[in-house]
Amino acid sequence: MAAPAKLTEYIDQNADKFIDRLAKAVAIPSVSGDASYRQHVFDMATYLKAELESLGVKVTLVELGKQMLDGQEIQLPPAILGEIGNDKNKKTVGLYAHYDVQPALITDGWDTDPFKLCVDKETGRLIGRGSSDDKGPLLGWINVLEAHVKQGIELPVNLKICFEGMEESGSEGLDELIQREAGPGKFFDGVDCFCISDNYWLNTRTPCLTYGLRGICYYKLTITGPGRDLHSGVFGRMVHEPMTDLIQVMSKLVTPQGDILVPGINDLVAPLTDEERKRYESLDYSIDDVDASAGASIAVASDISTVLMNRMRYPSLSLHGIEGAFYAPGAKTVIPAKVSGKFSIRLVPDMLPVDVDRLVIDYVQKCFAQLNSKNKVEVENLHGGKPWMADPTHWNYVAASKATEAVYGRKPDLTREGGSIPVTLTFAEALGVNVLLLPMGRGDDGAHSTNEKLDRSNYIQGTKLLGTYLWEVSKCA
Amino acid sequence: MAAPAKLTEYIDQNADKFIDRLAKAVAIPSVSGDASYRQHVFDMATYLKAELESLGVKVTLVELGKQMLDGQEIQLPPAILGEIGNDKNKKTVGLYAHYDVQPALITDGWDTDPFKLCVDKETGRLIGRGSSDDKGPLLGWINVLEAHVKQGIELPVNLKICFEGMEESGSEGLDELIQREAGPGKFFDGVDCFCISDNYWLNTRTPCLTYGLRGICYYKLTITGPGRDLHSGVFGRMVHEPMTDLIQVMSKLVTPQGDILVPGINDLVAPLTDEERKRYESLDYSIDDVDASAGASIAVASDISTVLMNRMRYPSLSLHGIEGAFYAPGAKTVIPAKVSGKFSIRLVPDMLPVDVDRLVIDYVQKCFAQLNSKNKVEVENLHGGKPWMADPTHWNYVAASKATEAVYGRKPDLTREGGSIPVTLTFAEALGVNVLLLPMGRGDDGAHSTNEKLDRSNYIQGTKLLGTYLWEVSKCA
Ligand SMILES: [Zn+2]
Ligand SMILES: [Zn+2]
Ligand SMILES: [Zn+2]
Ligand SMILES: [Zn+2]
Repeated sequence: MAAPAKLTEYIDQNADKFIDRLAKAVAIPSVSGDASYRQHVFDMATYLKAELESLGVKVTLVELGKQMLDGQEIQLPPAILGEIGNDKNKKTVGLYAHYDVQPALITDGWDTDPFKLCVDKETGRLIGRGSSDDKGPLLGWINVLEAHVKQGIELPVNLKICFEGMEESGSEGLDELIQREAGPGKFFDGVDCFCISDNYWLNTRTPCLTYGLRGICYYKLTITGPGRDLHSGVFGRMVHEPMTDLIQVMSKLVTPQGDILVPGINDLVAPLTDEERKRYESLDYSIDDVDASAGASIAVASDISTVLMNRMRYPSLSLHGIEGAFYAPGAKTVIPAKVSGKFSIRLVPDMLPVDVDRLVIDYVQKCFAQLNSKNKVEVENLHGGKPWMADPTHWNYVAASKATEAVYGRKPDLTREGGSIPVTLTFAEALGVNVLLLPMGRGDDGAHSTNEKLDRSNYIQGTKLLGTYLWEVSKCA
Repeated sequence: MAAPAKLTEYIDQNADKFIDRLAKAVAIPSVSGDASYRQHVFDMATYLKAELESLGVKVTLVELGKQMLDGQEIQLPPAILGEIGNDKNKKTVGLYAHYDVQPALITDGWDTDPFKLCVDKETGRLIGRGSSDDKGPLLGWINVLEAHVKQGIELPVNLKICFEGMEESGSEGLDELIQREAGPGKFFDGVDCFCISDNYWLNTRTPCLTYGLRGICYYKLTITGPGRDLHSGVFGRMVHEPMTDLIQVMSKLVTPQGDILVPGINDLVAPLTDEERKRYESLDYSIDDVDASAGASIAVASDISTVLMNRMRYPSLSLHGIEGAFYAPGAKTVIPAKVSGKFSIRLVPDMLPVDVDRLVIDYVQKCFAQLNSKNKVEVENLHGGKPWMADPTHWNYVAASKATEAVYGRKPDLTREGGSIPVTLTFAEALGVNVLLLPMGRGDDGAHSTNEKLDRSNYIQGTKLLGTYLWEVSKCA
């Protein structure tokens, strides 16, 4: 059973009201990464608490302590925990979204004020910071609640809501909260499955469900030599130069085709099954889509399923830059004394950061030893996170798939993402339930970018999708 | 014949007066690279003009036009052209020094005000910006003139003086002036040899004469790919990454031991003669000296003459840094869209920039082609300068060598420098005369650094050296 027709009718009839709601939320610049915006993040939490309470949700704002930011100690924004319904005969669905946003200044290159929602009637775009990441999806749930209340329809499931205000700034305090509230008698007790709406369609056409995320290990590889920066005229070819050594070692990490050269890394990757391969072959994505999103014809292969598997189910190694070397325009003849190459490896099942660290550090040391340099090397992992993968045949995914068919008239693509949303793994591991990533926006929404947008149809159809998903869950085995 | 004893006696007796003269010059912060200091550079020229004129020198301040600096169009400091003596029976010696200095702020880490000469009685150090580079040597000539005037001794040679105020900022306008004033009837007409005092001893013990300088070709190697920076989670292993390509190409330029891998480069280098090799073997410089000046035991070889030849008579290739990639502390997961590697090659005879360009650009293109990347490559030479070498058996050097023996009681080392002083080549080529680099300061003076100093003994003995050199020139064939 899809959602009752009265619900989807209400959503269609109240589209403009829902857009006003989004405009109100975008107007609160809840930038979590800038201390001077912190009050707005709190205002956003207060606003959401009032909205949720007016729709019958029991809400607690949970203090998460303090943090250091921009040289001052300030209060972390609260986590919003909400619950509605306590019917033992219903499933309980956990919901996650975040109410903070990335920084945005009109001088970054926005065409309109980033904190004033611009409704472009011609293209149907709703343009503003947070429209797609992640205020649109968060408000989608509120719209769904309102539709039930206003139409006098009982929710088909119990809900446990967890909205956070620090996602764009490392989710400080959230992992501890989730772990603290897992287990018998705690807030998350009884949750049967989780739904996170904070990612995007692979393309601009096809709805998808996402069942995997890559993890990451981020490395800093430092070479030190001279006691201070040297002049290349005076010292060039007299001494071992740290930059020369660093470039040599960095050149031995990955090929231009993206193959990782660290021995043993590929052995950690879960083997590809025939069934999984078919999933990539059936995805609605082409080399043209890759080129369009990258802005150039630079795909590493001409076969789209190879390229997609490289993003979704194989590890990647990217070289990000060098700290300590000359980086400005112009010509400076320095031999830098200490340089640090930054690179990261995206992890997939069954790679564990601890194993990857061992292999990488070992290999870098060996590569450096082969240089016969008198400089010194050091490798450190700056941060790491495990990959995550859910079972896409679980009833949680089946429900989302049926809901997608009901709203969009087509089966969703089953995708995995190349990036990370660390809280996904925390919910999966701490609560031991299936987690579903159910995106609302499109692949070109430009989260974190200038002119971030959410298409009107994605917002309104997406609201229907979230509501329908709850109804599908309610009748899944 | 050394200089008359009355001259060296005068110099010894007036040492404190000469130090006061240096203090007065250091107190004028003639920083040429900062528009807000420009008036001080002019003040320095005015001061020197008065000093020179009071000693009988006919002085012209030559306007060199305007420049753009810090966003404003400002007047270039004048070149100071001076002449004294016009005796057909005497040799005419050209002198060069510069009266501008590098920037210096106490907050850079100076122990004392950089523009107030600190006379450290214990160590004999005269500490202040420009003390060694190049106000001390410039004033050395003025001290010599004063000694002659005050002792009533006629100069043994005619002098043509060229002091500039833009050396630390690219010597704008000077090359054109020298070329304009070369030839019959012009200012530099009749100059028999040139002497430049603007470099340093190789170590802290042994006077030297410098007869060679390396040239330079500075390259910018740019790889472009995506239309904008990409997120490594989303795009890692889907596309050809410019950084990966750049690091691959940069890794093929030079070995950790300093050997240049560009085919054909080494064939351009003038072959080593037995006699020249002996010159390096006899230099007073050790691996310990290399380590001390580099601040670590990182010499590329254990044999000092190999290391010295690497600095003085072989080309070197240094990798300076990357523009466009992540360079800050911390961890950013960006795939930069456009990255430019900066590297330079120091040139020695008989390498010409045009030949080096051809070989480098060709090789880089080939290396890039082998990567099979869909990105684009571009290589450009940002600036270049030819190497310079003089004949160290010329009477100009013989005179300086005898003067060194007379003042310091030992033969000077014959050295070549790894860096560039471009005006040297201009004088040599435009005037067609032998040019001598006759340093006053020591290898640890820290020109361009914090706590720049000139040792009192180097200043006073150095003044004697300059005076004695003129007398030795006067009797050389
Ligand atoms: Zn988000
Ligand atoms: Zn985000
Ligand atoms: Zn200088
Ligand atoms: Zn200088």
